[in-house]
Amino acid sequence: MVAFEEFGKRVLNLVSPFAAIVKPQSAFFELFGPAGFKAQATLLRCAKELGFVTILDAKRGDIASTATAYADAAFGPIWNADSLTINPYLGRDAVEPFLSAAKAAKCGVFVLVRTSNPGSGLFQDLKCDGKPLYWHVAAEVAQWNASTIGECGLGDVGAVVGATHPQELADLRAEFPNVWFLVPGYGAQGGTAADVKAAYRADGLGAVVNSSRGVVFPFHPDDPDWEAKIVAAAAKAQAELK
Amino acid sequence: MVAFEEFGKRVLNLVSPFAAIVKPQSAFFELFGPAGFKAQATLLRCAKELGFVTILDAKRGDIASTATAYADAAFGPIWNADSLTINPYLGRDAVEPFLSAAKAAKCGVFVLVRTSNPGSGLFQDLKCDGKPLYWHVAAEVAQWNASTIGECGLGDVGAVVGATHPQELADLRAEFPNVWFLVPGYGAQGGTAADVKAAYRADGLGAVVNSSRGVVFPFHPDDPDWEAKIVAAAAKAQAELK
Repeated sequence: MVAFEEFGKRVLNLVSPFAAIVKPQSAFFELFGPAGFKAQATLLRCAKELGFVTILDAKRGDIASTATAYADAAFGPIWNADSLTINPYLGRDAVEPFLSAAKAAKCGVFVLVRTSNPGSGLFQDLKCDGKPLYWHVAAEVAQWNASTIGECGLGDVGAVVGATHPQELADLRAEFPNVWFLVPGYGAQGGTAADVKAAYRADGLGAVVNSSRGVVFPFHPDDPDWEAKIVAAAAKAQAELK
Repeated sequence: MVAFEEFGKRVLNLVSPFAAIVKPQSAFFELFGPAGFKAQATLLRCAKELGFVTILDAKRGDIASTATAYADAAFGPIWNADSLTINPYLGRDAVEPFLSAAKAAKCGVFVLVRTSNPGSGLFQDLKCDGKPLYWHVAAEVAQWNASTIGECGLGDVGAVVGATHPQELADLRAEFPNVWFLVPGYGAQGGTAADVKAAYRADGLGAVVNSSRGVVFPFHPDDPDWEAKIVAAAAKAQAELK
């Protein structure tokens, strides 16, 4: 577990000249149980100390009383994250505790709208009243976001929209100009810099494009040059996305 | 944290004459960070030692590579649960790793279909091709379940269907006779024993009805008789649901 934490810290240091935001994936900490979660806490703290904005990618979602516990963990002293990914399937009253906790802590959330995986359309593409389900979710997200919009024209309730669906990304961007998009799927999942261009607004704001496996694991485990390869991958992503 | 774990152990011992299954809610352990997760592991282990079947209520869901990590944690040595609740929003390829890991470990999953919270209809009730979204999810669950059906006529891929929607529970039971239902919402959330009757098949199998807050917290924190009240609440639930 020490090695796990040390690797994470090293990655944070290596990518800090190139990235403003990091998005730790909670599942890979959970896989190591309580000790893994200790590493999650340590790395979230390290990331803050290095000046990163943090998005805890945990895709939580539950009924209100339970959602409150997840939200308090995310934005309180346990994880102290700046943002959390959440799942909308349970509806508004289940999302509400995340919105209130985020607001109280001056943090934000990203709600799953159109995910980057190949089979995301199974339910997300189902047509309801002429529009796909993900569009209905996006419209609700825009409503939840409305009261939080700041001077920059963007609010605290964002949407996860995969880079692997460029046309949908463009359509959603056009319809919902005040919603931050978190855009996974660039890099290892096949999305290109051209694919994610549509996620940004005309002023260049509005999207957080993340490369996770592409930057963290661009090397073979035996490679003595792994640090240089992480730096090169981060620099390449930064240049491509400029 | 010692008190937290001791309380959990005491509850397990108190309810063991009345309940066959326990469903720890992961959020309330996460709220205490790594130490809370240590308690989660301890209580899952205790529950197994006492002969309970365990359902880890964590409502996980993510793209395949990440879902694999959650599934390995749930069914491997980390949590060693018999079953896990999962969220279907990301689609089949995101659910698949949970199904394979459950199968390999001779465990099961419960997929969120129709949740018990008051606002669950926001997306779950959206009509797609004449049927509500939750019905489409239930139909997929039935397909995922099909290859796992055993001699008892039930399989390893269940559905979460809230007690707070009795008519929908009855309709789903009639349409999907081979799917286990996990039925939250009985007790503290307002569902009654009459409401959940429709969740069972004619042979009396097919449903796991859980009472969580109703059994674990039927007392005022200062109450010296709290143990007797937990026993009384568990006995009452057992009698009502017989």
